[in-house]
Amino acid sequence: MTVLIINGPNLNMLGTREPEIYGALTLPQIEEKVLARLKVAGIEGVSVQSNAEHEIVDTIQSAVLKGVDFIIINPAAFTHTSVAIRDALAAVAIPFIEIHLSNPHSREAFRKHSYFSDLAVGVIAGFGVDSYLMAADAAIKHLAN
Amino acid sequence: MTVLIINGPNLNMLGTREPEIYGALTLPQIEEKVLARLKVAGIEGVSVQSNAEHEIVDTIQSAVLKGVDFIIINPAAFTHTSVAIRDALAAVAIPFIEIHLSNPHSREAFRKHSYFSDLAVGVIAGFGVDSYLMAADAAIKHLAN
Amino acid sequence: MTVLIINGPNLNMLGTREPEIYGALTLPQIEEKVLARLKVAGIEGVSVQSNAEHEIVDTIQSAVLKGVDFIIINPAAFTHTSVAIRDALAAVAIPFIEIHLSNPHSREAFRKHSYFSDLAVGVIAGFGVDSYLMAADAAIKHLAN
Amino acid sequence: MTVLIINGPNLNMLGTREPEIYGALTLPQIEEKVLARLKVAGIEGVSVQSNAEHEIVDTIQSAVLKGVDFIIINPAAFTHTSVAIRDALAAVAIPFIEIHLSNPHSREAFRKHSYFSDLAVGVIAGFGVDSYLMAADAAIKHLAN
Amino acid sequence: MTVLIINGPNLNMLGTREPEIYGALTLPQIEEKVLARLKVAGIEGVSVQSNAEHEIVDTIQSAVLKGVDFIIINPAAFTHTSVAIRDALAAVAIPFIEIHLSNPHSREAFRKHSYFSDLAVGVIAGFGVDSYLMAADAAIKHLAN
Amino acid sequence: MTVLIINGPNLNMLGTREPEIYGALTLPQIEEKVLARLKVAGIEGVSVQSNAEHEIVDTIQSAVLKGVDFIIINPAAFTHTSVAIRDALAAVAIPFIEIHLSNPHSREAFRKHSYFSDLAVGVIAGFGVDSYLMAADAAIKHLAN
Amino acid sequence: MTVLIINGPNLNMLGTREPEIYGALTLPQIEEKVLARLKVAGIEGVSVQSNAEHEIVDTIQSAVLKGVDFIIINPAAFTHTSVAIRDALAAVAIPFIEIHLSNPHSREAFRKHSYFSDLAVGVIAGFGVDSYLMAADAAIKHLAN
Amino acid sequence: MTVLIINGPNLNMLGTREPEIYGALTLPQIEEKVLARLKVAGIEGVSVQSNAEHEIVDTIQSAVLKGVDFIIINPAAFTHTSVAIRDALAAVAIPFIEIHLSNPHSREAFRKHSYFSDLAVGVIAGFGVDSYLMAADAAIKHLAN
Amino acid sequence: MTVLIINGPNLNMLGTREPEIYGALTLPQIEEKVLARLKVAGIEGVSVQSNAEHEIVDTIQSAVLKGVDFIIINPAAFTHTSVAIRDALAAVAIPFIEIHLSNPHSREAFRKHSYFSDLAVGVIAGFGVDSYLMAADAAIKHLAN
Amino acid sequence: MTVLIINGPNLNMLGTREPEIYGALTLPQIEEKVLARLKVAGIEGVSVQSNAEHEIVDTIQSAVLKGVDFIIINPAAFTHTSVAIRDALAAVAIPFIEIHLSNPHSREAFRKHSYFSDLAVGVIAGFGVDSYLMAADAAIKHLAN
Amino acid sequence: MTVLIINGPNLNMLGTREPEIYGALTLPQIEEKVLARLKVAGIEGVSVQSNAEHEIVDTIQSAVLKGVDFIIINPAAFTHTSVAIRDALAAVAIPFIEIHLSNPHSREAFRKHSYFSDLAVGVIAGFGVDSYLMAADAAIKHLAN
Amino acid sequence: MTVLIINGPNLNMLGTREPEIYGALTLPQIEEKVLARLKVAGIEGVSVQSNAEHEIVDTIQSAVLKGVDFIIINPAAFTHTSVAIRDALAAVAIPFIEIHLSNPHSREAFRKHSYFSDLAVGVIAGFGVDSYLMAADAAIKHLAN
Repeated sequence: MTVLIINGPNLNMLGTREPEIYGALTLPQIEEKVLARLKVAGIEGVSVQSNAEHEIVDTIQSAVLKGVDFIIINPAAFTHTSVAIRDALAAVAIPFIEIHLSNPHSREAFRKHSYFSDLAVGVIAGFGVDSYLMAADAAIKHLAN
Repeated sequence: MTVLIINGPNLNMLGTREPEIYGALTLPQIEEKVLARLKVAGIEGVSVQSNAEHEIVDTIQSAVLKGVDFIIINPAAFTHTSVAIRDALAAVAIPFIEIHLSNPHSREAFRKHSYFSDLAVGVIAGFGVDSYLMAADAAIKHLAN
Repeated sequence: MTVLIINGPNLNMLGTREPEIYGALTLPQIEEKVLARLKVAGIEGVSVQSNAEHEIVDTIQSAVLKGVDFIIINPAAFTHTSVAIRDALAAVAIPFIEIHLSNPHSREAFRKHSYFSDLAVGVIAGFGVDSYLMAADAAIKHLAN
Repeated sequence: MTVLIINGPNLNMLGTREPEIYGALTLPQIEEKVLARLKVAGIEGVSVQSNAEHEIVDTIQSAVLKGVDFIIINPAAFTHTSVAIRDALAAVAIPFIEIHLSNPHSREAFRKHSYFSDLAVGVIAGFGVDSYLMAADAAIKHLAN
Repeated sequence: MTVLIINGPNLNMLGTREPEIYGALTLPQIEEKVLARLKVAGIEGVSVQSNAEHEIVDTIQSAVLKGVDFIIINPAAFTHTSVAIRDALAAVAIPFIEIHLSNPHSREAFRKHSYFSDLAVGVIAGFGVDSYLMAADAAIKHLAN
Repeated sequence: MTVLIINGPNLNMLGTREPEIYGALTLPQIEEKVLARLKVAGIEGVSVQSNAEHEIVDTIQSAVLKGVDFIIINPAAFTHTSVAIRDALAAVAIPFIEIHLSNPHSREAFRKHSYFSDLAVGVIAGFGVDSYLMAADAAIKHLAN
Repeated sequence: MTVLIINGPNLNMLGTREPEIYGALTLPQIEEKVLARLKVAGIEGVSVQSNAEHEIVDTIQSAVLKGVDFIIINPAAFTHTSVAIRDALAAVAIPFIEIHLSNPHSREAFRKHSYFSDLAVGVIAGFGVDSYLMAADAAIKHLAN
Repeated sequence: MTVLIINGPNLNMLGTREPEIYGALTLPQIEEKVLARLKVAGIEGVSVQSNAEHEIVDTIQSAVLKGVDFIIINPAAFTHTSVAIRDALAAVAIPFIEIHLSNPHSREAFRKHSYFSDLAVGVIAGFGVDSYLMAADAAIKHLAN
Repeated sequence: MTVLIINGPNLNMLGTREPEIYGALTLPQIEEKVLARLKVAGIEGVSVQSNAEHEIVDTIQSAVLKGVDFIIINPAAFTHTSVAIRDALAAVAIPFIEIHLSNPHSREAFRKHSYFSDLAVGVIAGFGVDSYLMAADAAIKHLAN
Repeated sequence: MTVLIINGPNLNMLGTREPEIYGALTLPQIEEKVLARLKVAGIEGVSVQSNAEHEIVDTIQSAVLKGVDFIIINPAAFTHTSVAIRDALAAVAIPFIEIHLSNPHSREAFRKHSYFSDLAVGVIAGFGVDSYLMAADAAIKHLAN
Repeated sequence: MTVLIINGPNLNMLGTREPEIYGALTLPQIEEKVLARLKVAGIEGVSVQSNAEHEIVDTIQSAVLKGVDFIIINPAAFTHTSVAIRDALAAVAIPFIEIHLSNPHSREAFRKHSYFSDLAVGVIAGFGVDSYLMAADAAIKHLAN
Repeated sequence: MTVLIINGPNLNMLGTREPEIYGALTLPQIEEKVLARLKVAGIEGVSVQSNAEHEIVDTIQSAVLKGVDFIIINPAAFTHTSVAIRDALAAVAIPFIEIHLSNPHSREAFRKHSYFSDLAVGVIAGFGVDSYLMAADAAIKHLAN
């Protein structure tokens, strides 16, 4: 069983900028936590980050070949702008959870619209690094059914 | 430490209607699971359900006196219509998580707007009964900090 | 066979206020006429009125246990504001007709939107007390099929 | 006493296409039923159908000369597009009921707007051929007052 | 002469929460001041508060029987959501003033719309407890004419 | 020199209905006045009326062959709905004036939009039969240049 | 009998700028023509131009004292921005015609809205200086009735 | 096998007006080309043009009786205004292609909306007479499957 | 202590036009009442009226030098159009109350938007001359704190 | 003569996913067909696919140097989001056709807007692989003129 | 060579109010700097400020006679409300730059719309007094070409 | 001191296409000018161009490490579509100026919205290559403070 974790643009800066908002953990530290959580459940986790829309599209497309069973995606800025990633997720038809570190509804008005929510199994927003861990737990449960 | 769980209108019908959508568990069965989860963490859970907006407003108002430290709310239909509950939550200033059993973004257009999301610590939607358990875990973690 | 008639807020004032608009009949007089009409067809009618959204939600929820086969609802002001009643009707999955005494399209712009019309078997508006009787006839016909 | 029944575009196809939606009765069969119902009440019914907006405008204009006392109109597609028919109805000032076989609110978004509802005595939608009979009954009652 | 003062949801928390915004006076203290002001003018004041929309509807309906001559209403959250209360006020046709403690135009965008302002004699917003006293004075003057 | 006067739907009812709004003159009487006015200027006038959009389209198309130099059009209800007539006017490229008996801006909101105004030489609205005569004078002047 | 002609901002530049659009006549030349036309009918004409909204408001207010019977107004840019002039015209209740040299519907989208059209007797647009003369004729006719 | 080609309003003027936009071919010349193309594939083509919405509705309704297997429609101005033709196409359930000579997206904003595109097999716009030939080829291919 | 009262365009016509709407008092009579009320509280009142936006801007700017402590403004038509007056009020940072004689929410839709309400201490609308007196009382109270 | 065919994101998955919607042909198979069709007409075809917006921008920019005479573009998801590709096409000023395999108007509402249609020679949508072949034929014809 | 600098309402208050936002320089000090900058380039600068829309219109109109070659305008509040100034600028056809001290896009939503930007040579916003100097440099460069 | 200049998509084509709009200078020539201007002030300039959103995001992220003190960005097409670049700029919190060669407000409506303006120190648009030089001067001044 494999879970793919996709991190959108600027998430590679986690832990180095605005720690009061996004927390002090770096993305590798977050990934370590999530992969460990998945490993306990006997699931292999793979985590990627990219600032490039096409790399995320490529990653999703290749997920079928790599036998990915579930996707956790924090689309970050692409939440509001990427139809290409939406289409890739729809094409591979792998169930996915949309997550956000902070709560988009408390920010600018344009962040209220997501190109992913209506296709997602579920949405988790606002819990910082725990958004990842909660999604990991949900993925484990989903795959156990 | 006390966590208050508030369930909005029609959630008392869980388990008896449309089980293919909302699952086969009744609300008491869900509550039992959530309270147990909280108890393990040494937290007392209290769960209420009401079809009446004013009862939910009353419950939130009295939460201060009862020493409630955190609220988990599934506003159901009131998500889209109740400014009164929003105002009550803002007034008591107890941190809260907004949860949904199903994913509102996959349903009618009017369900895209929530009167709660911008005030919530976070939002969890689409995981059925696990939306409750994930919120309970997040509440436990929140109170532990 | 049982038909439930639900009357929304302020309909208890019928016959006492603005008779030039809503007619001189009181709600009990209207109910008497409708129940008689149903009785002729061998159908038991039950009519309730409430100014409280939650009482209407409760009534709809309990309709399943009480063996209600059809609902006639004049949601009045709740036509434009109650997702909770909409959800209750959708949950019990009892066929229903939406009725109005006057014609909402001739009034304020906000009355053009109904949370019920798209789920209803049909809509009847503008015929005063006859809106009830026409709905009763339609219910009788519906149940006869 | 004369009641004019006007049937808009494509209603001449009733009974031959999509019977699961619109029923198995042809328009002449429906007309026969409605005229019979009116006749019992001592009212002459005249029913016309046209796919042409101008023929319906002409029919409404000549209704005054022909002594029409009431109009039942199923504007079909013209519900959403014809100001000319609206203006004709307003000019002759004959009271009318707007009817629909199916429920426009359950269909495409552009069907939510009607150029007739705000001028109509009342609106009946969703009851198939019974929409006609209910309107006939309402017309009879209206003329009896 | 009787003036009815209606206080909407969460106003029972006045004086206990967010005093920097809403002032340090409790609702009973405010009511005492307003009733005293009315009494000086020989007018009996009756003040009610409810978190329940239906109780406010009931109160307004019964105002006719109780001989209420004027209503002062602070609809609070119901300002933006309650067509039922609007309809009740329109039905009893008792003149009323809409008041607000704080200025809704300085808050969230959804607070700019009121279901009451277009029916009200007048609107007073932003003066804290003085909004009540100013409305009382206006009521006294209105009843003196 | 020829001027074509086109009258849209329901204008054939002028003088017989709602004289307090549209005046007591019938369309033939109005046409007589306009044609006389044109004749004095040595211009032949031709006036047509139709409730049918396609007849107006046909008339405009044939205007080129008939040597029409100028068009005065009172589109009536088609003002707001007919792209076909707009396209015909654009295709024949004969200069035209849009006229209205009453002032559309004082009526329903949907009458504020015209499919003709941006293509017209000019617009005259609100002067009753004089709208025709003013347009005739403007046509005479236009053709004299 | 007196007719007041009001010319809004920038109309004092007529004849000196963009003659290909607005014609080669200066405003005094246009005024001379209009006043002559009115004089023939035994009506005194008074024409003013101002770039200042308040001067136009003042002029309208004083029109009552000066016995003005009719107003012709070319509001120019104020068409789209001045509620103050609208209110002045409504207050003095002198009938008025709104005119435009060019056709606002062929220009920027913001020129489609007028604060005057719904209150005007009629609207004339697109005929250059003839817009003034046509309005003068209409005023003469109006005053003769 | 029969393919019906429907040409909307003003297309009868092709070749005679604005050849720089719509080309120098007349509609009969275009029809000749398309019918020849179909004939090569052993398919009978029938082409009609009408400025009248109802004639197009009639033509579509009778297509079933006449054994039409496929429709190519250039709705012209009716693209943006005719629900009646849309309903006729939906009722007969004959597959159809929507074509346009020019590109509606390069023209006025109101031409961006089509009442046909969502029901069509496909849409072809902007290729002049070739839009017809491309649609003919697509029809041939469709019928060959 | 000084309170400045600013009256916007057309308010100089009070008492002379439409007394059934605005009352029979002239503006000087209203001012006399308000200044007297302020004087009793030991506050000097200064009242100005202008039809010119720039004069009101100038007045507000000079209010700082003149030691004005509070402003009562009835912006009249400028309520909906003047950003310049808004900016002046924001610049001088003198607390102000927005008042209206009639209730703007009962009038044209464009009167629902105010450029002042979100900056005002409070808003009073609909009480005729009493809107001024109530504002005066509120100003007195505000300055006493 | 050279025709460049550009395929947007996710089109590399053709033939492997959702064949019931997009057909069983892979993109290389489609390209082979299109290039063969062009070759017959003596035109060199070059086909590229990319999930990356910038690669498509680069390809369009370099098309000038490579002597590309015509572009066929299936922008896929970029139809709705890429101003950069629009700007590149406008900058090189090479005529292009916009194509789609399926019909965007039958899908989500956000697919109704295209950043390309108003600049394109023409648009072809809904014909699967034939959309490409039809565009190839149109390109051949275009280049032959 | 002459450059005219126009300063809109409330800019005369610069340096005296809110220096933390708009800087400590007064308008005369800013003008001195700008005129000096222009003088070095051999260009005469003239700077005016007005709170009155009509004075700015007058100034722009007279700019032609005075031989003004370029205009720098900080319309301030009139940016969002004055069609009259827009029309004056368009009429005199003198090239102009629109400047702002602060960044309107960081302020209220209504400040996003400008009646000037689409006609301006360019727009400079957000640089305080340097917005003036940058515009002066741009004017110098423009006039040197 | 270091200033980073970022050039968005298609700006690498400057000087080779549409010189009448964008000028005859190539991007390297523009960069040379800007870097020289910065050098005179003792500031190192670094200029990059990319058609790829992610490369611009990467460049902004690495600017912190490289000690960039100020950013000048011409986002070109990304002005209207890139939340990712907006987020990168917000994350690094380096002050920046948004520039445009031409004036976006004179072009298509979708170019009126910028994802950058509300975060920028200032905006400069419409001055061709001088937009860069003006921004350089502003950056120099900003860094000198």
